[in-house]
This record gives sequence, structure tokens and C-alpha cells, in this order.
Amino acid sequence: MVRAGSASVAAGPTLAVVAREAGVSVPTASKVVNGREDVAPETRRRVTEALDRLGYVRRPRFDAAKASGLVDLVVHALDSSWSGAVLHGVEEAAYEAGLEVVVSAGPNRTRGDRPHRGWLDRLTARGSSGVLFDLAELSHAQYAWLEHHRIPFVMIDPVHEPPAGVVSVGAADWQGGVSATEHLLGLGHTRIAVIAGPRRRTCSTARVAGYRSALASAGVRRRAGYERYAGFDDRTARLRTHELLDLPEPPTAVFVCSDRMALGTYRALAERGLRVPHDVSVVGFDDLPAARWATPALTTVRRPLGEMAATALRLLVRMAHGERPEGTRTELSTRLVHRSSTAAPRPEPAPGR
Amino acid sequence: MVRAGSASVAAGPTLAVVAREAGVSVPTASKVVNGREDVAPETRRRVTEALDRLGYVRRPRFDAAKASGLVDLVVHALDSSWSGAVLHGVEEAAYEAGLEVVVSAGPNRTRGDRPHRGWLDRLTARGSSGVLFDLAELSHAQYAWLEHHRIPFVMIDPVHEPPAGVVSVGAADWQGGVSATEHLLGLGHTRIAVIAGPRRRTCSTARVAGYRSALASAGVRRRAGYERYAGFDDRTARLRTHELLDLPEPPTAVFVCSDRMALGTYRALAERGLRVPHDVSVVGFDDLPAARWATPALTTVRRPLGEMAATALRLLVRMAHGERPEGTRTELSTRLVHRSSTAAPRPEPAPGR
Repeated sequence: MVRAGSASVAAGPTLAVVAREAGVSVPTASKVVNGREDVAPETRRRVTEALDRLGYVRRPRFDAAKASGLVDLVVHALDSSWSGAVLHGVEEAAYEAGLEVVVSAGPNRTRGDRPHRGWLDRLTARGSSGVLFDLAELSHAQYAWLEHHRIPFVMIDPVHEPPAGVVSVGAADWQGGVSATEHLLGLGHTRIAVIAGPRRRTCSTARVAGYRSALASAGVRRRAGYERYAGFDDRTARLRTHELLDLPEPPTAVFVCSDRMALGTYRALAERGLRVPHDVSVVGFDDLPAARWATPALTTVRRPLGEMAATALRLLVRMAHGERPEGTRTELSTRLVHRSSTAAPRPEPAPGR
Repeated sequence: MVRAGSASVAAGPTLAVVAREAGVSVPTASKVVNGREDVAPETRRRVTEALDRLGYVRRPRFDAAKASGLVDLVVHALDSSWSGAVLHGVEEAAYEAGLEVVVSAGPNRTRGDRPHRGWLDRLTARGSSGVLFDLAELSHAQYAWLEHHRIPFVMIDPVHEPPAGVVSVGAADWQGGVSATEHLLGLGHTRIAVIAGPRRRTCSTARVAGYRSALASAGVRRRAGYERYAGFDDRTARLRTHELLDLPEPPTAVFVCSDRMALGTYRALAERGLRVPHDVSVVGFDDLPAARWATPALTTVRRPLGEMAATALRLLVRMAHGERPEGTRTELSTRLVHRSSTAAPRPEPAPGR
């Protein structure tokens, strides 16, 4: 039983055929197709396989030619200090491609009872050339829904490693960790600590791995207590800095894995009466405007957020035209921006407090 | 000669009738209708008057019921540090109103030869419930175009006083200037300087007026050289701070009219070996995240950017439903956020350098 093709509904098996094939009820099959979470993983797998086997298409297959001229940008934290740079990059590149950008908190909207299905439904109703997700954590069901409806999407700086086949754009975080640490080594530091973001974040572990690699290459041993994990915020970074300063041999330099966190380190150092860079050198990560505005201006690893965003948009446009990018992960290079927060270590042993 | 009414074209006189009425050619009348700049002011006035007199409507009158579910946010500087807060406020309020937000640099896009007419045309082609302009400077022709096509629009924090009848949302800048200055007076300062943004900006002059009013109310005389004007950036604020410190009687406190500028003042004070707030107190304006991250945390006047943006969106929705706001200017209150950059003046005469 195959429905007749029409302008708005592609030919393909009905949901009833899929349900029979998967050995589930039609409502259950429908739940899977609609990206609902309340389905057992094994059931979801059976239905997904049946959908693929039969080539079921609930809505018209995505067609770039019919597209609305709109592209969606879903931003995890709209008021975060760097979503501005991402938005700027996307908007510029979209303008050049003749597209306009719809920005939303989208499926990551956290307010309790509101389902994210409303967003998915509106997306298909009004049309979209595709979706860019910035700093997102998508659920398995959300990935399945996007793939199933063949909506092109690209992840900018995904929080976790996305499933195989998902296209993403990030920064060379490992290389950035190497650069920051090599810069401090080059100034003569050997007591170099790192304050990273959360352990579970890919970008965080990559930066710490870069730090370790640089130390190893220079033959500098890692010291106990010199690797600390914080949130990506100034408050917890300040606490971790105080912990580092309480060590019997405190560091003479700290690589802090975000600019905002580095400003928390500044605060902790000021609270101890220590001066940057005279007493302790500090390197940040990101190169937000606040890094330039800080006193002393923060030496940091620049992530090209605007370029990352523009690259993601251009990949999305190619995908909307049926191309498939060769690799699924694009990493843009990072580079150290040397400002005023780093200097050679003082000849004396570093100050305790 | 009147065209027949239809679903997509409202009844009204043709452009030829308008051109005859105004005593100009049809192409010239067309230029005015399309918001082109290359028309002499006097000619534009004649055509605009003829359009009004005859009730000419080129495109269908705006109809909220037919709207696309999209609202436009045009941001002057997408990568500015506070557009994030504005976007967040608009997106939240739009979500609650069942609308989605298209964000663009829109008609303020500055790249040379690209006309902004493309944006205006796309706006009408895809439909929009209305437009929010953030920090914008619209040309006379742009105002005329929006009014003429009856597209509802609201200005958030307009750079200049908009023409009569234009709806705008801002912050109580004058009151903010009073609060900042009263806070410093209350701590015992009498040598209080102000570093303002550009003179031609309404918000800037309002804040300085608040400063003057607070001094006058307290019976504290204004001192020569204590009012300085900078760009809204840290670099020029730093230069103005050095100028203040070079005065024979330098101030013991500075009210700086943006947080970013206040960080420039921090830099200048550090360059002189002066400590905040021990040697000089500093008050900022805006309450950006960077104000909290700074060391010492910046005492500042909070402008409720998110609320301003949400208020503008809600006004726009009411206008799209045919309501007319009672007043055209809504001002949300500002309030002083007391952090760590202000203290009583030192008993000694303030440090020279």
C-alpha cells in the first residue's frame, strides 16, 4: 500500500505499513516519527530501522528550491557574551547567500512543561533551508527527527561529540592548549597550572590534552594538583585559583580555559595581593571583547567564532543544495594573542599568599 | 482612475495619478515610494504629500491576520556586547506571543554599494508582523517607507530623537545620571567628574544632565574640565581619564557613561598606579556581564536591556493588532547596582599622579 505522490506529500509507505513491519502499534510508530521521548530505546530502534528499510517519508522531502529563504540559528544561551560573535558571522554569511536568519532558543528552551515539538513543527510549516545549532546538546530523538525529515543541519561547537555523520564546525582546541602552554614555557615558566571547564565537555578535555602534550614535549613534569576543573564561569574559576595558591608550591602561571574564567582568576589573584603578570602570568581562551577591556589586557587563545559560524552557514548552504561535505568535522585554527597578562616568572620562588 | 480592489492589492490611486498630483514624473514618484535617497528633499515632500492626500497604497495594507508569524529585529551592531541581552529579551517575548524572530543587520548594513532596498523588499515579500530597530539611525526615507507601507515598527534605544509619532522604548538615562552622581555624593565625594559618550547622542546628553542636576541639588559646584566626551569605547575613555588626572585638582570620583568606557578608566588609573576605589571611585552605566567580571567589580547603573527589548516586542504586537500605544516613548527605570568600585574619598587631597 503506497500513497499517491503529490506536490505536498512524497510517495512512500504509510505509517501503518511501518508499524506492521516494526511489530508495533501505529501510535507508537507515530511517536518515533515525531521525535517523542516516551518510547523505549529498543522500540525506537525497531521503528527507525523499519522507517529506513521502507523509505518512509512523513513530510515532503526537503527541497532547497522550495525553501523559504530562511535559515535557522538555534542558540543555546542567547545572552552569553559570545553568541553575538556567532550571530554576526552567521548573519553576514547568510546575507551573502541571499538568506535571512531566524534566531531562537529552539529545542533547548528549558522551561518545564513546554514541549520542543512546537519548534520542530513550526520549522517544517514555514520552511527552512536548514538549521545551525550553536553550543547545543541534542537528544537522540532530536537527531533522529532532523535526519528523518532530511533537514540539513550543522552543529557549531557541539557540547559533546555528535553521532557519526553529523556535520560540525569547531576550533582547534587541542592546538590552542598547546599554544597557550608553549607560550608560558617560552617565557621560562615550569610551574604552569591549568583551570579547565567541565570534564565532560569535549572542548575542555581537548585543551587540557594540549596542555599536557606541550609540557611533555618540553620535558616538564606534571605536578600534583595543577589540573583543576571548574564551570565555564568566573566564580568557580576564582575558587580553583585560590586552591592553586594554597598548594605548597603554587604555580607561577595559569592557563585558564576561557576568558570569563580568566577574569575570575584575576579576581582571586587581586584578593591575595598578587599582581598580573608580575607575580603570576595568566592566559585565557576565546578572545572575547572582555579580554581586551581587562586590566591588564588578557593574553589569550583566539577562537575565530565569527569565522566558525560563517563556515557552518556555508556548509549548510552546500548541504541544502544536495552536496555532502567530505569530512563531517571542520576545525578552524586557534592562535595565541599576546597582550599584557604574561611575563617571565620572577627569579624568586613564587609567592605563597 | 482607481484600481479594482483584490486580495493582494488594496484599492487606491495609481502611481501615475500621484505623480500628476505632485507634478513629477512617474519614475520620480516611484523612487519616493521605494524609499530611494536620490530625490531632492523638496520633490520628496511634494510626492509624500500627494501620497497622503490621495491615500496611495502600493502594497497591501499590513494585515496582522495574514502575517507570517515572523517579526524582524534589526540590530545596529550584531557583535556589540549588549545585543545579546536585547536579542534574549525579544526572543523570549516573541516566543510567548507565538512569533519567531528574524535577525539582521538590515538597512544599517554599511557595505558600500549594496542598497538597503533589498532588505525592505524581502520584508514585504515574506511578510513580517513588524520590525524592531535596536540602536538604529534611520534615514528620513526609511521612516517614510515604513510609515507608508504601514509596517508596525518600534525603536529600541534610538540614537537620536525619532520623528513625532514613532514609538520607542528606552531607559531613564537622566534618572540614571542622577543616581550615579547621588551615590558618589552620598559617599562624601565633591570632586566628581563625568566621562560621557558622544555629545550628539540623546542618551549621552541625558546622563550628563542627570549628573548636573544631582550636583546642583546638592549645592556642589561644577568644576572646569570635569565634563569630558568620548566615544562609547574603552580607548577614548582611557584618554579622557588621563586628561582628568592631569587637571590641577583631579577628581576623586568619575561617573563613566558606559561599562566598557569604565574599563578604559580602570586601565588609565592602573597606568598611574592609582587603585579603585581606594584612590578614585568609578561608576559605570549599563550593567553588562563585564561589569561583574571586572576587578574590582564595577558599581554601575543598570539599564534593563532585556526588559526594554521585551517591552518593545509587546508594543509591536499590540500595534500589529491595530492598537496605538498611548504615549510614543516608553522609558524603563534604571537603578544603581552597588559593587566594589566606589568608596568614600580618602581624607587626604586626591593624588595628582
